[in-house]
Amino acid sequence: MQTIEEIQKRIAEAFKEIEFRKKPGELYEPISYTLSLGGKRLRPALCLMACDMFGGDVEQAINPAIGIEIFHNFTLLHDDIMDEAPIRRGEETVYKKWNTNVAILSGDTMMALAYEYIMKAPESIRSEVFSVFNKTAIEVCEGQQYDMNFETQNNITIKDYIEMIRLKTAVLLAGSLKIGAMLAGADSEYCEALYRFGENLGIAFQLKDDLLDVFSDIEKFGKQTGGDIATNKKTFLYLKAFEKAEGETLTRLTHLFGNNDSDKISEVRKIYEELNIREETENEMKKYFDRAMDFIEIIPVNENRKSELIKFAQLLNRRES
Amino acid sequence: MQTIEEIQKRIAEAFKEIEFRKKPGELYEPISYTLSLGGKRLRPALCLMACDMFGGDVEQAINPAIGIEIFHNFTLLHDDIMDEAPIRRGEETVYKKWNTNVAILSGDTMMALAYEYIMKAPESIRSEVFSVFNKTAIEVCEGQQYDMNFETQNNITIKDYIEMIRLKTAVLLAGSLKIGAMLAGADSEYCEALYRFGENLGIAFQLKDDLLDVFSDIEKFGKQTGGDIATNKKTFLYLKAFEKAEGETLTRLTHLFGNNDSDKISEVRKIYEELNIREETENEMKKYFDRAMDFIEIIPVNENRKSELIKFAQLLNRRES
Repeated sequence: MQTIEEIQKRIAEAFKEIEFRKKPGELYEPISYTLSLGGKRLRPALCLMACDMFGGDVEQAINPAIGIEIFHNFTLLHDDIMDEAPIRRGEETVYKKWNTNVAILSGDTMMALAYEYIMKAPESIRSEVFSVFNKTAIEVCEGQQYDMNFETQNNITIKDYIEMIRLKTAVLLAGSLKIGAMLAGADSEYCEALYRFGENLGIAFQLKDDLLDVFSDIEKFGKQTGGDIATNKKTFLYLKAFEKAEGETLTRLTHLFGNNDSDKISEVRKIYEELNIREETENEMKKYFDRAMDFIEIIPVNENRKSELIKFAQLLNRRES
Repeated sequence: MQTIEEIQKRIAEAFKEIEFRKKPGELYEPISYTLSLGGKRLRPALCLMACDMFGGDVEQAINPAIGIEIFHNFTLLHDDIMDEAPIRRGEETVYKKWNTNVAILSGDTMMALAYEYIMKAPESIRSEVFSVFNKTAIEVCEGQQYDMNFETQNNITIKDYIEMIRLKTAVLLAGSLKIGAMLAGADSEYCEALYRFGENLGIAFQLKDDLLDVFSDIEKFGKQTGGDIATNKKTFLYLKAFEKAEGETLTRLTHLFGNNDSDKISEVRKIYEELNIREETENEMKKYFDRAMDFIEIIPVNENRKSELIKFAQLLNRRES
């Protein structure tokens, strides 16, 4: 068994070793830049931990894990164009630092590089790994499209929102875990259970992200805080607030999201506090987190083999950035 | 042996049969729209013809061929954003008809769908087919980046230009042929010869495209004519004209490309005619076309098995649109 720290060290090493082609620089510099910004390396960590949990050789999983992380970073590159996000991981986004065309094309190249690494999975399981990855990749695109659609749609329910974040965020965490389990040769039933663990954990993870966007600060969070409020993003917090708000509070909330007053963010925060939206979100997170735990419980491996993954899930649930 | 017409009919049928997921519509409608506009289906035709030439079963090649065509259409979607091209195949481009975000994300999804079809190659050769495809995909991105770089670079040589179009256009034709040959179980030496055939044919093909952009009309060509001149694109014609122009002609040419006079396109055309640029381009095309023929010649299959592919290459070379 490897600890979270050992897994993360191994991933960091692997990323340092990667050498992409150098030319044309305008294509490869943004790729190196993006991958060098780090981030939590959450998805490759989940992939390796899943492999390790089932007693697999994590070295067999390292390349597919890198592929997943490159894919994830590709989606960020393109999402940042679409969302007009200026900052990512405390640094300028690629489309801001270079330009939109560079971000489109570097992203496309990263997608191809992601497949290259995915396809380094051992031959006996390569096609199956590819299928899980590719289905996930398409679902991530669908999730992003729903996310964009919601910007101009007015009748979004919390259920719609959960389905959107399931596609946009959770399935890739789930797929990472499933691929790790597959690479360890786990039974398909338990690969699937781990997928469902990841799916529920992923929804909890995104709810935490939404919470941090409202209640965290920029130094810790690495991107603009209050951004979701500023852009009227229909997150769980937003939808829940509109569900609960009545009378004067509803009028104020509607006014705030319909205008761009200079105190918009702080005023919305106040209403969220009044309406206990923080607790509501934490309860919703807990619901998905507990479901995730139910799925990991049914996997018949020794409890101490599960401990690192469970610890990691708990860390994600409690993180402040 | 199948004729070009039979091959093209089979490809058209295959595209009609494809059913993508329907939701979200904003993601899948632009994909259906793009693929329904048709185009020459050049790359899948080359793939199937190569397979057929080596006596392979074209049905084994149909899915990878579709994958290549979907990939090609994905590159057009993203290129049209980057080149700000309003018309493609006589119709509005996706980013114009919808918007840039839709074009980015539909394109991304098409890329994933392309891989899905590529990976339907028979298992025994799947990884090899993937490798050829993926290397090609990355080179196509590199070619597009060079193309964009050249817009603001002033010391482009004809050699640089040929290398750019080799990457941006020729390698995908070459890869299509190679994959077709591989799927027929051809010896690697002959797969490679067919690749080189395609590479040289592809360069000739792009030179023809450049020629048509200047000397064709919009009804036949399906996109704006004179567009390369209007946007100062450093095509073979442009570079050759600057190489040959002297004195007064050079001054006029420099003026025309440095300004946007209303008669810019017709005036540049006149100078191209004066400098025999049409013939120069045709000679260059012939050089690459002849090289392509040298490569197909060394392949030891019966001449009548090569005839359809050679006929197809000649058609491409003589096309008016």
